[in-house]
Amino acid sequence: MDLRRELQRAHDAARPTLATGRVADYIPALGAADPNAFGLALATVDGEVHGVGDWQTDFSIQSVSKLFTLALALATGEAVWHRVGREPSGTPFNSLVQLETEHGIPRNPFINAGAVVVTDRLLTLTGDAAGAVREFLRAESGNPRLDTDLVVAASEAEHGHRNAALAHFIASYGNLENPVEAVLGHYYAHCAITASCRDLALAGLFLARHGVRRNGGRLLSRSEAKRINAVLLTCGTYDAAGEFAYRVGLPGKSGVGGGILAVVPGRGTLCAWGPALDRAGNSVGAVAALDAFTTATGWSIF
Amino acid sequence: MDLRRELQRAHDAARPTLATGRVADYIPALGAADPNAFGLALATVDGEVHGVGDWQTDFSIQSVSKLFTLALALATGEAVWHRVGREPSGTPFNSLVQLETEHGIPRNPFINAGAVVVTDRLLTLTGDAAGAVREFLRAESGNPRLDTDLVVAASEAEHGHRNAALAHFIASYGNLENPVEAVLGHYYAHCAITASCRDLALAGLFLARHGVRRNGGRLLSRSEAKRINAVLLTCGTYDAAGEFAYRVGLPGKSGVGGGILAVVPGRGTLCAWGPALDRAGNSVGAVAALDAFTTATGWSIF
Amino acid sequence: MDLRRELQRAHDAARPTLATGRVADYIPALGAADPNAFGLALATVDGEVHGVGDWQTDFSIQSVSKLFTLALALATGEAVWHRVGREPSGTPFNSLVQLETEHGIPRNPFINAGAVVVTDRLLTLTGDAAGAVREFLRAESGNPRLDTDLVVAASEAEHGHRNAALAHFIASYGNLENPVEAVLGHYYAHCAITASCRDLALAGLFLARHGVRRNGGRLLSRSEAKRINAVLLTCGTYDAAGEFAYRVGLPGKSGVGGGILAVVPGRGTLCAWGPALDRAGNSVGAVAALDAFTTATGWSIF
Amino acid sequence: MDLRRELQRAHDAARPTLATGRVADYIPALGAADPNAFGLALATVDGEVHGVGDWQTDFSIQSVSKLFTLALALATGEAVWHRVGREPSGTPFNSLVQLETEHGIPRNPFINAGAVVVTDRLLTLTGDAAGAVREFLRAESGNPRLDTDLVVAASEAEHGHRNAALAHFIASYGNLENPVEAVLGHYYAHCAITASCRDLALAGLFLARHGVRRNGGRLLSRSEAKRINAVLLTCGTYDAAGEFAYRVGLPGKSGVGGGILAVVPGRGTLCAWGPALDRAGNSVGAVAALDAFTTATGWSIF
Repeated sequence: MDLRRELQRAHDAARPTLATGRVADYIPALGAADPNAFGLALATVDGEVHGVGDWQTDFSIQSVSKLFTLALALATGEAVWHRVGREPSGTPFNSLVQLETEHGIPRNPFINAGAVVVTDRLLTLTGDAAGAVREFLRAESGNPRLDTDLVVAASEAEHGHRNAALAHFIASYGNLENPVEAVLGHYYAHCAITASCRDLALAGLFLARHGVRRNGGRLLSRSEAKRINAVLLTCGTYDAAGEFAYRVGLPGKSGVGGGILAVVPGRGTLCAWGPALDRAGNSVGAVAALDAFTTATGWSIF
Repeated sequence: MDLRRELQRAHDAARPTLATGRVADYIPALGAADPNAFGLALATVDGEVHGVGDWQTDFSIQSVSKLFTLALALATGEAVWHRVGREPSGTPFNSLVQLETEHGIPRNPFINAGAVVVTDRLLTLTGDAAGAVREFLRAESGNPRLDTDLVVAASEAEHGHRNAALAHFIASYGNLENPVEAVLGHYYAHCAITASCRDLALAGLFLARHGVRRNGGRLLSRSEAKRINAVLLTCGTYDAAGEFAYRVGLPGKSGVGGGILAVVPGRGTLCAWGPALDRAGNSVGAVAALDAFTTATGWSIF
Repeated sequence: MDLRRELQRAHDAARPTLATGRVADYIPALGAADPNAFGLALATVDGEVHGVGDWQTDFSIQSVSKLFTLALALATGEAVWHRVGREPSGTPFNSLVQLETEHGIPRNPFINAGAVVVTDRLLTLTGDAAGAVREFLRAESGNPRLDTDLVVAASEAEHGHRNAALAHFIASYGNLENPVEAVLGHYYAHCAITASCRDLALAGLFLARHGVRRNGGRLLSRSEAKRINAVLLTCGTYDAAGEFAYRVGLPGKSGVGGGILAVVPGRGTLCAWGPALDRAGNSVGAVAALDAFTTATGWSIF
Repeated sequence: MDLRRELQRAHDAARPTLATGRVADYIPALGAADPNAFGLALATVDGEVHGVGDWQTDFSIQSVSKLFTLALALATGEAVWHRVGREPSGTPFNSLVQLETEHGIPRNPFINAGAVVVTDRLLTLTGDAAGAVREFLRAESGNPRLDTDLVVAASEAEHGHRNAALAHFIASYGNLENPVEAVLGHYYAHCAITASCRDLALAGLFLARHGVRRNGGRLLSRSEAKRINAVLLTCGTYDAAGEFAYRVGLPGKSGVGGGILAVVPGRGTLCAWGPALDRAGNSVGAVAALDAFTTATGWSIF
């Protein structure tokens, strides 16, 4: 199979779909993104890296960062699972409803509420949650310039009443260890990291390698890595996780910056990026490209 | 009818019920209240004031203050009704669920979310929402020492993650005009006012007089005063408003400090206080006393 | 006060509002009603009966019947209150959501679910729930021809999947004593009774007389009659009960046939009818007329 | 890898967990099941069949049947996806709440509401939905005696108020093509089929073979078969789908009779059965056995 050619075909299949999406505009800094930008990268466990389109352009990784906060928090033990569930939420990513019914325990680590709790845990563990994510991404991608975009982080904080509501609500149930302001600061900082498709595909390879990092060291046990893949599949793309599993058939994590990082266990990773989003907040082009790629290659896990 | 005797009888009927309640303990400053304290006061539109038990003891008025913030906000016009509804919520006083479904418009001015919006409005109108409530209470009760308990206000703020969540959530829908911190500061300050049954009964008389203040000036039109009474009846006692209407049959506002201020339109006001609360957060003794009083006197509005 | 003149004025104030409403069309038999029909009747405890417009025209009383099923069920004791609550629901009249959270106990007797439970109780008590309502209405109105419209009842049954869902759902929680089909049959039959404003105003007088029937016999204790008025005020007009209390200030029960029966305790009853409904399912004209009448006469209970 | 040995080990690991579960007792016919019964079967795409424990004992397949109704309905086209979603529900399997919010479109084909819609579709397509499922199971398992247990089906119907509520509710939104009674009859009849672990493992192999039946004919396209696997993974085990994916890592469908049928794409199927259920309604022993088996063999899809 010629993976380069399949990448190109998936890219070509996705391009025409971009016009149907809308760039996220809840913060000005994201609203300025080019709706026609699109890139796709593939990294294999054998060390190959390929890309097409704008695959080396930096974008705001947003919620894709939640995959890394979870992995880093779990690297030291499973305690965080007492404070956040593993079930799909069936509700929008920033909903407070379920949190009230379920007494401050977020449904899963990938809705905003759950990511706030995981960030809190990582902050307790490391003293610098955003820094830990940044360093991990730099190490795995080999890109030492990868960093938080401070303008985006500040913009998120300024327009962050909804996340502040979530964090205070969780705190009201006693499910935060650190002050709300500190947790939110780190949350915004890791969401506002900018990276390229290339960077993220490389950084996600530890999940395709079942827990093994670029340097050969083990971040997670084989079993734990597989389990993160399972949570990605059931919860990684907001309340469209079922649809993503149906169409793409790979564990993946999306962000409102337009990126989606998907894992092909044992084989590699794919990262697609296009800022135009569908109504569930997932990149129209990224979903289309991943769908086309897995259909053509049979690389779905099912 | 010998009103003094009926007050005494209502008081005597209520006393034995106190043991079934629990003092609010969500903030330490309230948890110290004496569960056996109990007082009952009556003020008539003719100028009579009577009381039994601990009717001259100060207590934290808490949500009873919401009646006054609403009246003061409405005194300058009906604009606040664009930002808060008039329907019973059917959910607990501090719930966020409905707020999400209804896009940041609280159901009514007496659940916490609605009171935050009304406080915000009063802050815009007056520059000092808590001060406006305090001055009004002083003027109507004739008690110049009536004031905010700063220890209680600070304790509320310290344990106020739930209210902070509500306020940020409302702000995320664009339904706050002032900064969250400022609004919450005034909210806590008017809730933390201490007053006696006597003070509150006198302060509430403008509603029994259909809008006319102690000094003969008009705060609200006859129609508007009646309408506040209607909102009190349907929404004034949290999600037990139906039960309160059924048992007591008067418009009333309760607070977790254990006070309930009830209005007998055209006749007067009753204020009962006992810190032991039922599961809906209403004073066990106050409900029992008001029930006994209206049953004996026929002073229900129905 | 010239009550006839006030009735006429209220009628005249309401007429222009009719055009803003829509006739209920969920069953064909109701959809044929004339949106421009409008009538208003007043009956006093002194025996006066006045009317304007189409006050002697028969219409489908629909949910107004629920007031009578409740009164008749309570006439034999308070047992039904173990099976249905007294709180406003905060949700549409035919919602199943709350029923699930609250394990088959409807919030109040006036939402559909609650009325199904009350009908079930009345069926157990009398063996003929619809017949009991019909006989009571005939006796109080003095209209021996008042009866169920069998075409409407059949049409309700035919289009009654939602009510069937409610009834089966309640039965699944063990809160029905009779077979679902039997309960629904009686429910549709009492809702499909046709009567005029005149008939209903007379039939409701027992609530203005605090429990005393036309023949001087007592249906309910004074206390129980007052309490039904309280439930009417907080729950009688679907999820617009707060708005109705705010505007009209009287206990009342509405139906999707366009009728509203309101009680002025100690004074009399008003029945207004106009098939054009607002979005909450209440008659646009009837609400407007009652609003105008109570504003002009000061007959609000507040 | 010695698959027989791994099966035996998984069986041995599961046995001690049985005591922590409870047999479903919502219908008498199921309540009589032996809580200590336990069996486990494996069928491979190469034609091997192995089993341990009570793997040849018949049990009530219940919701496992929903996998087959879906596959048979999809075999003729994708139209059913207009009437049912593909997202996890985040709520219990028999909830009506979401159905109300989402206007009668069930979240997925495996919650009861969704299975009712799929059964309705299959009834329209075949004229005999339960018969179609039965014939398919007989053909794939090679067991001609496999049949509906009429006592169980009758018991389901008799205690089926909840499902009747769901079906009427769906019908009220216009999302049923056949009469409620007919649809429920077929629904109960296919749920009440009895089969053994061996039978079900064989009957599920078409999903491991990506759509190819025992006789070599194709029921579904490769792509459609993979997509059913995806829906199984995200929605197949009620509101514990996330947990099942996390622990077991295979697409699977459970039933309250205690069976779970899991698919190992490209390799085979596993069927485990033990009537003792956990709180989410999944077999305690079956989950434990599948967890142990995939952990030991690495046969998770992740």
